[in-house]
Amino acid sequence: MSAQSAKHMIAKNIGVLGAGQLGRMLALAGYPLGNTFTFLDTTGNPSAGIGEVIVDPENQHLAAFLDKVDVVTYEFEHLPVELVKQIEQHKPVYPGSRAIAVCQNRVEEKTLFDRLGIPTPAYRVVESAEQLAAAAAELGCPVVAKSVTEGYDGKGQAVLKAPEQAQEAWDSIGHTQLIVEAFVDFVREVSMIAVRGRDGEVVFYPMAENQHVGGILRYSVAPLPDLDPSVQQTADSYIRALLDELDYVGVLALELFQTRDGSLLANEMAPRVHNSGHWTMDGAATSQFENHLRAVQGLPLGATNAIAPTCMVNVIGLEGDNAALLAIADTHLHRYDKAERPGRKLAHVNVVASSHAELLEKVRACQALIPDAPPVEWSFESTL
Amino acid sequence: MSAQSAKHMIAKNIGVLGAGQLGRMLALAGYPLGNTFTFLDTTGNPSAGIGEVIVDPENQHLAAFLDKVDVVTYEFEHLPVELVKQIEQHKPVYPGSRAIAVCQNRVEEKTLFDRLGIPTPAYRVVESAEQLAAAAAELGCPVVAKSVTEGYDGKGQAVLKAPEQAQEAWDSIGHTQLIVEAFVDFVREVSMIAVRGRDGEVVFYPMAENQHVGGILRYSVAPLPDLDPSVQQTADSYIRALLDELDYVGVLALELFQTRDGSLLANEMAPRVHNSGHWTMDGAATSQFENHLRAVQGLPLGATNAIAPTCMVNVIGLEGDNAALLAIADTHLHRYDKAERPGRKLAHVNVVASSHAELLEKVRACQALIPDAPPVEWSFESTL
Repeated sequence: MSAQSAKHMIAKNIGVLGAGQLGRMLALAGYPLGNTFTFLDTTGNPSAGIGEVIVDPENQHLAAFLDKVDVVTYEFEHLPVELVKQIEQHKPVYPGSRAIAVCQNRVEEKTLFDRLGIPTPAYRVVESAEQLAAAAAELGCPVVAKSVTEGYDGKGQAVLKAPEQAQEAWDSIGHTQLIVEAFVDFVREVSMIAVRGRDGEVVFYPMAENQHVGGILRYSVAPLPDLDPSVQQTADSYIRALLDELDYVGVLALELFQTRDGSLLANEMAPRVHNSGHWTMDGAATSQFENHLRAVQGLPLGATNAIAPTCMVNVIGLEGDNAALLAIADTHLHRYDKAERPGRKLAHVNVVASSHAELLEKVRACQALIPDAPPVEWSFESTL
Repeated sequence: MSAQSAKHMIAKNIGVLGAGQLGRMLALAGYPLGNTFTFLDTTGNPSAGIGEVIVDPENQHLAAFLDKVDVVTYEFEHLPVELVKQIEQHKPVYPGSRAIAVCQNRVEEKTLFDRLGIPTPAYRVVESAEQLAAAAAELGCPVVAKSVTEGYDGKGQAVLKAPEQAQEAWDSIGHTQLIVEAFVDFVREVSMIAVRGRDGEVVFYPMAENQHVGGILRYSVAPLPDLDPSVQQTADSYIRALLDELDYVGVLALELFQTRDGSLLANEMAPRVHNSGHWTMDGAATSQFENHLRAVQGLPLGATNAIAPTCMVNVIGLEGDNAALLAIADTHLHRYDKAERPGRKLAHVNVVASSHAELLEKVRACQALIPDAPPVEWSFESTL
C-alpha cells in the first residue's frame, strides 16, 4: 500500500450493536465519511432501515457480524458486559467495556462521580425494604428509589412520599439492590454532550436544557442564553474527568440538574449518542453522530459550536402533521421509519431560529402540530 | 384512513433514474423525511451504495422499478425523452419530460432563454463545416462549437481560434448540428440553484461563484461578499421565469457568466441537483437535496439562507488526505464510495468559516491536501 493510500484508509465498515433510530442516524452521518454499516439486532424488531441488519434474537450470528466489521460501537448500553469483553478480543469496541460496566450500574456510576469530585444529589444504597425506609427518613422525603441495574427511561423506579411506602416500593421494583436519591430543588435539567477521540482529544457541545414528561424527553434547547460561561466550564471539567478516567472514545452524554445557585449535580450518564444531542444535527457545526464516528475511527473531531438557537422536539407515539411542521421556517424533520405506538419515539423535529424568542414561537407552533406534545417550558423564558 | 393519518402520508418510496453520487446524496437527505429509495441504473456500474439498486443495462426491469416507487426523479438528464414520457404514463416524474427535452438540446435551451428575455452570449446554429466557418467569422474568434445534444462536462466541444479551424472542429465533434457561441469576457462564472414546489412555490439559494478547470468544476463558493443585491434579484427573476414556464418541480441549476459591468449571461441549465449546489449541505439552512425531495413529494420547501461563508472543494481522480482535511476546523467530507480513476468525482469537502478571508485560508489548506487541486481563484479575493 502506498503512503498516499494509507493516509486515506479509514475504518470502512462500522458494526453497531442495536438497530434502532440511533443506529440509523449514525449510518446517515457515516456514509459521507465513506463508511458502511452492519447492525446486530437482538430484539427481532430492527428499525434502522439502512445498511445491513443481522437479526439475531438467538445470539447465533455474532461471529458473522464480527467478520464483517472493522470497529464496533453501540446504540444501547444495556448489553451484557461479558459479551462486550468477548467482542473486544476480536475487534476494537468504542466506547469500551469499562464504560458500559460503569454506566449500567448506578452504584458504580455514583462511586465514580464521587471519586472524581463530581457532585451528585445525596444518595444511599439499600438492600432491603427496611434499609429503604431508613434511607428515606434520613434523606428526607420525597425520595426516588431506582434499581441499580437495567434502568432505562424511568423503568424500575418508584417515588416515596414517606418512609412508610418503602415496602410497597421495594416490592414494585423487585430488585435486590436499589439506589435512593434525595429530590433536588433544581431550576432545570441540563445535559452535556462531549466527544473524546482515540488520541485523547476532547470537544464539548454547548449545554442543552431538557424537558422530560413522564420520564421521556420532549424538548432540548441549546445554546442557553442565560448560561454563565463558568457553569459551562464546570460541566466541561466534569465530563472531561469522566472521559479521561474511562479512557473513553466516542460520544458521552451526562445529564445534570442545575440548582438555583447555578451549581450542577450529576444525575446519570449514557455512553452513546443521546436524544438530548439530536439538536446538533441541524444546530451545530458537526452533529454528535458524525463526531462519534470520527472518534471511533480515529479521525480528528469536528467543530461543536452552535450555529443558531435550536430546539429539538420529540414526536412520541403518534406522528405529527409533517407537512405543516415543514412549513414552519427552518424546521427539519427526522423520522425513524417506525410504526405508531404509545410512548414510542417516532421522530424529532429540529427547529432553528435567529433568536430564542423567535425559537420559542416556532416551537409552540410545532407543539400544536404534534399529538400530545406538552407545553414547552424553558427556565429562561421570562428573560426573552 | 383517518384525517390524522392522511396528513402525514407523504410519498414513501422515491424512484431515481441513475445511481451515482447525486442519487446517493438524495437518499441521505430523504431518509430523515421518511423516504426509501429505489435506483434504476442502466450503466451496469452503480455507485449509490444505499437503498435498493436495480441494475438494468438491457432495459428489462422498468416495470419492476415502477411497481416499487411512488414518484420518479433523476440524477442525470441525458435520458431518452420517450422513456421519460412512457414513465409519466404510470407514475409522476419530477422534473417532467419537457424540462428534460429542453435541457438536453442546446438549441431548445437557447430558444427558451431568448423567448423569456434571458440574455445569453451571442450564438449561431450551424449544420455544416462551412456554416461553422461563417459563424466563427461573424461572431469573432475565438468561438466555442458544441454539439446540440449529448453534451456533458465539456465533451463534444471544440474551441476555434480562427474560422480556418472549422473543418477540423466539425470533424472532431462529429454531430449534424452544432451551436457556436462567442466567447464572453466574463469576470466570473456563477450559478443559481432554485427549487419549485408542486404548488408553484419558488425558493432561491444565494448565487455561487464556480471555478472550472478543463470543464470540470473544482470550487464553488457562496454567498458572494461583493454581490450587488440587484444582481441576485435579476438571477432570481431569470430562473423563476424558467421554472414557471416549464411548470417545473424540483431543483433547477442555471449556470451564468457575470461580465465586468455586472450583467449576467445564461450559459446552460441542468434539471437536477447540481455540483455547484453541494455547498448547501453544510452551508445553507436546507440542502438542495432535501429541498428537491420536499418539492417532488409536495411538501413545503425549506429555508435557503446561507449559514456562513462556505466553499465546496471537489476531489477528482485521487482521494485526498482525509484525516488531515477533517483536522481543518469546520470542514465536512462527503465521499461517494467510488474507486479512484482519472477525472472521476470521488468526493467533495465543504469548508465553512466565519469570514471569507478565513474561508480562503482554509480552502488553500484543503487544496494542499487534495492531489492535483488547482490554486483557488476567487474574483473577489482582492476585496477580502
